[in-house]
Amino acid sequence: MPEIKHIVIIGAGRVATQLGLALKKSGFHILQVYSRTRASAEKLGKLLNSEITIKLSEVDSNAELYIISLTDEATLEIVDKLKLVNKLVVHTSGSLAMKILKPASKNIGVFYPLQTFTIERPLDFKSIPICLEANSQANLDLLNKLAGRISSNFQDVDSDQRKILHLAAVFACNFPNFMYSIAENILKNSGLDFNILKPLILETAEKIQHVKPHEAQTGPALRGDDKIINEHLELLKNSPEFYKLYSDISKIIKEQSNKQKN
Amino acid sequence: MPEIKHIVIIGAGRVATQLGLALKKSGFHILQVYSRTRASAEKLGKLLNSEITIKLSEVDSNAELYIISLTDEATLEIVDKLKLVNKLVVHTSGSLAMKILKPASKNIGVFYPLQTFTIERPLDFKSIPICLEANSQANLDLLNKLAGRISSNFQDVDSDQRKILHLAAVFACNFPNFMYSIAENILKNSGLDFNILKPLILETAEKIQHVKPHEAQTGPALRGDDKIINEHLELLKNSPEFYKLYSDISKIIKEQSNKQKN
Repeated sequence: MPEIKHIVIIGAGRVATQLGLALKKSGFHILQVYSRTRASAEKLGKLLNSEITIKLSEVDSNAELYIISLTDEATLEIVDKLKLVNKLVVHTSGSLAMKILKPASKNIGVFYPLQTFTIERPLDFKSIPICLEANSQANLDLLNKLAGRISSNFQDVDSDQRKILHLAAVFACNFPNFMYSIAENILKNSGLDFNILKPLILETAEKIQHVKPHEAQTGPALRGDDKIINEHLELLKNSPEFYKLYSDISKIIKEQSNKQKN
Repeated sequence: MPEIKHIVIIGAGRVATQLGLALKKSGFHILQVYSRTRASAEKLGKLLNSEITIKLSEVDSNAELYIISLTDEATLEIVDKLKLVNKLVVHTSGSLAMKILKPASKNIGVFYPLQTFTIERPLDFKSIPICLEANSQANLDLLNKLAGRISSNFQDVDSDQRKILHLAAVFACNFPNFMYSIAENILKNSGLDFNILKPLILETAEKIQHVKPHEAQTGPALRGDDKIINEHLELLKNSPEFYKLYSDISKIIKEQSNKQKN
């Protein structure tokens, strides 16, 4: 396989944008951006100084690497419409198996950056773990080399492990963010400002960079403080969903804490 | 009331330790540390260069401020044993009303630092929000002055608001940490290293310093991606508690996302 210099990005969402920017910054030439939506293609094309297309049949055949960064559903829909034969084609999904790319090419792989992305928020890719998989050692070598140009944190992860990582990422990112959102809601209902919780949220995430989460646990449920738990439930009685969540999560924390004590 | 220069700390736990260190660093003289446990009193006394006692009857009467930093239960037990008459007495609890201190003194207040504390992990108090309450303007002025010496982020918060803040803090800190701990558990069961999730956890907390949590939400539940949700549930089928949590939280996220769309 030839060294990767020219890349086509299929997709123009959050991952495509941030990954495209990181690759461009590291000296790769993003030949073309494909998106079903012209506005999205134009927006990212402008950022990456690339050609754009909204037709799969017009995808440029002169790149050495094709990165599909779409929703899982959209990826599954387009793979057999891309006829890239011998080109290296990867997707960036946490959940899709590598093999679903087989209809698109003989050379396939996965380039999954384990991070939460926002279109507007630039990220330093250097510390983002990138999970790599490929259908041959030669392809894996190419992806390792590419990943090493934008991050110092990449490793081989097979499709089954990647699924587990993606599940764990839901608990590490999506669910904590939803808990922040409930806190925001509770304060808003009482006319209080969410800003006051920001240092606490940051310290909670910074602490587990150094302490294991199960050792960092604090709070009324861990202490088995039923008086406070009941006071909190009383405050939540008009929000049945939050009441139930508070009650269920506290119960599991208490049970696990009791198990550890015994 | 005289200006605060000398302080007695009742308690030697996580909050007492970090607050004591911050006050000492800002030039206050910690006269004495009380703890029921001699070893704890000695440990903190050494850090703060203070006298120690394990008897409430021997609490030094020469301080201008007495900070009670115990569990809520222990605080309620000792308040009527402390005879401090006119001295300013505060507690550091998120949940206890100020008025429970009445048996201890005529001058009472609350000094609640809204943060998660670890004994071993030094914290920069400058950015920690401190919630203040007092039973007179003079006492509030003293606490404001004290708080201003260790933090640049303090405000008046009454007992009812403080309870709401404490409830929100459980959702902002204790529950997210428990979600990290579930992620840790999932990875451990598959022989994967928790370290790979650390950049994701940090970015999730950093993102909401700038974006509102309900706007920062990502993930399969927000997208209504039932295919991935079901795959994740399948992976959790041997952990009924985590299965239920994943399912319940995803359901609420989906419902709220649908409400926002309509």
